[in-house]
Amino acid sequence: MESSFKFEILHTSKKSGARVGRIHTPHGIIDTPNFVAVGTNATLKALDSKIAQDMGLQLMFCNTYHLMLQPGTKTIAQAGGLHKFINRSAPIITDSGGFQVFSLAYGTVKDELKSKGKKKQNNSVLKIDEEGVLFRSYRDGQKILLTPETSVQAQKELGADIIIPFDELPPYHIDKKDLKKSLDRTHCWEKRSLDEHLKNPNNQAMYAVVHGGIDKDLREHSANYLSSLPFDGYAIGGSLGKNHTQMFEMLSYTVPLLPKDKPNHLLGIGDLASFEECIKLGIDTFDSSHPTRCARHGLLFTNNGMVRILNAINKTSFEAIDTHCECFTCKHYTRAYLHHLFKAKEMTGYSLATIHNLHFMVQLFATYRKLILEDKL
Amino acid sequence: MESSFKFEILHTSKKSGARVGRIHTPHGIIDTPNFVAVGTNATLKALDSKIAQDMGLQLMFCNTYHLMLQPGTKTIAQAGGLHKFINRSAPIITDSGGFQVFSLAYGTVKDELKSKGKKKQNNSVLKIDEEGVLFRSYRDGQKILLTPETSVQAQKELGADIIIPFDELPPYHIDKKDLKKSLDRTHCWEKRSLDEHLKNPNNQAMYAVVHGGIDKDLREHSANYLSSLPFDGYAIGGSLGKNHTQMFEMLSYTVPLLPKDKPNHLLGIGDLASFEECIKLGIDTFDSSHPTRCARHGLLFTNNGMVRILNAINKTSFEAIDTHCECFTCKHYTRAYLHHLFKAKEMTGYSLATIHNLHFMVQLFATYRKLILEDKL
Repeated sequence: MESSFKFEILHTSKKSGARVGRIHTPHGIIDTPNFVAVGTNATLKALDSKIAQDMGLQLMFCNTYHLMLQPGTKTIAQAGGLHKFINRSAPIITDSGGFQVFSLAYGTVKDELKSKGKKKQNNSVLKIDEEGVLFRSYRDGQKILLTPETSVQAQKELGADIIIPFDELPPYHIDKKDLKKSLDRTHCWEKRSLDEHLKNPNNQAMYAVVHGGIDKDLREHSANYLSSLPFDGYAIGGSLGKNHTQMFEMLSYTVPLLPKDKPNHLLGIGDLASFEECIKLGIDTFDSSHPTRCARHGLLFTNNGMVRILNAINKTSFEAIDTHCECFTCKHYTRAYLHHLFKAKEMTGYSLATIHNLHFMVQLFATYRKLILEDKL
Repeated sequence: MESSFKFEILHTSKKSGARVGRIHTPHGIIDTPNFVAVGTNATLKALDSKIAQDMGLQLMFCNTYHLMLQPGTKTIAQAGGLHKFINRSAPIITDSGGFQVFSLAYGTVKDELKSKGKKKQNNSVLKIDEEGVLFRSYRDGQKILLTPETSVQAQKELGADIIIPFDELPPYHIDKKDLKKSLDRTHCWEKRSLDEHLKNPNNQAMYAVVHGGIDKDLREHSANYLSSLPFDGYAIGGSLGKNHTQMFEMLSYTVPLLPKDKPNHLLGIGDLASFEECIKLGIDTFDSSHPTRCARHGLLFTNNGMVRILNAINKTSFEAIDTHCECFTCKHYTRAYLHHLFKAKEMTGYSLATIHNLHFMVQLFATYRKLILEDKL
């Protein structure tokens, strides 16, 4: 069977590397550039799949690590796959679980930057070697072996439209020799993941994950090596630097090395300050839990900046979060009511705020696409 | 201005005291018998007003005590009243705050039954006398005086369609002499509440609260006294007994004493086992947080009994909670998915479960009304 995955570029900006495209998947189209909402546990936080899909979120990111532990990928396979399980007919992407197990072992890059490189100890990772990672489920103590092969098998059971090979997440504080060693292992694991995937493509696409930290040579090496393999798209992962400047610099030499005719994805970046620059460098999709996490903290996005809903000024602000916004929340509720719901710690507030921020993301990326089509970005 | 509050009885069952009626309010009709959903903090838990209203919940109960403390009734008045504040165009009922402040002082009847009459100490109630209750806000330490007059004024600011006079909630373990004293005070407070209300009816209706515990003489006395005053309806409050038998017995002698041509309401009762018997005794409306609280604990109502969604059997049950149910949750999601959401402690699960249980209540009462119209109940 020919894969129904296809990427077409509709327009490349005359002003930058920004491009407007369309990713075709078995569950429909993803217009690019686009934002990918994160639903770690097979749901967005405080929002059900139906509402999320009706809002126009074209791609949803679910985490294989979490779903392996609860409810288990076999259960989801029994349900007929992730789409059926969560009742989403639009595209889904899953990751490999690598990020989470290495975060268990080393702490996240963010933790690490905060703690200045002091490693977090965690007893749940029992062994890391060339085969993969053996860890203990925090839910039931069961030992789980995550390898390129088992990760891909798990992602086959989930059945997402786009899947990701198993990689190693090296610590940020690592010398070049060790980073090179980690990169070699990651390349080996990605090749094994791809091989496993191609045994049974299952109408899924697989994106490589380009590593190399903020080392130009290693990023080039990674981009070149992975581009030589028949991946369907290219995600940029690993350490993206400790600030925007480092990240933009890294992207400026990495993105041009990726196959132009394939979609690319920037893993885990979703702060508003990053999008425009990244899109200009040619990034197609971004996933992040940032907008939904902000929502639950009462930080609401608008074109005139962030509204902190718990600020006292909103107690008697009887207008929408954004009077021009067409979202369900802005159409029906005022800042004053949301302020009250957050003060009273009512879940309703978290849902309404989440709807608003995600609607903002959908609109924001529609605007980016429009600007690119008009050569204004 | 003539009040737009009106009650009409469409049919009284040939088999019992059950009746089907219609309460007309400035914000529309409440078909009776009916269930009243509780939205303590001006929202149902885990569900916004728009969805709640669209589900057909004709009356929503909000708690004045909570709204006095957060966001404050003045803020809600500034918003244009509770309906505007929460964006509900259908009827709302508020209580007086009496139940909550006396629960602070004495503990709830339920706590008290559990603790066998040992009083709970709480420092937030500073003074109880003939004037009313002085208490300290748990939010900001501010002293608040709740009296018949201030409670009614607060309920004027909230602007609910139906309001409730300030009463004293006596402890369950009380001797007849003290219960009589409490009843006298409650009657005095209810009269003062009514007087305050009638100074400015504001197109609101006021229901009396009939007290007397499980003492037949006192219930009779209370029903007779309050029936002599021009209340728009009659709620049955105070201690309703320690079990169903005591409650049904109390209702069997109390309800017949209430004016037949006015709606009545049973305060705080919402367990499935009580409805049918109470409706047969002539009760028109019931409020309770029971169905929504059950939902958040994963206890889902069906015509074939309670589904405990966390039970292991639901892990791989790929069908709706109730295959005959037409609610949003049952139309879109399976028990297995809800089981997963509850296991993962995702808020989405609480919202979906709440939708289901409330839809069940709406349907259940529609069925009761149908049965009464057909003289089958």
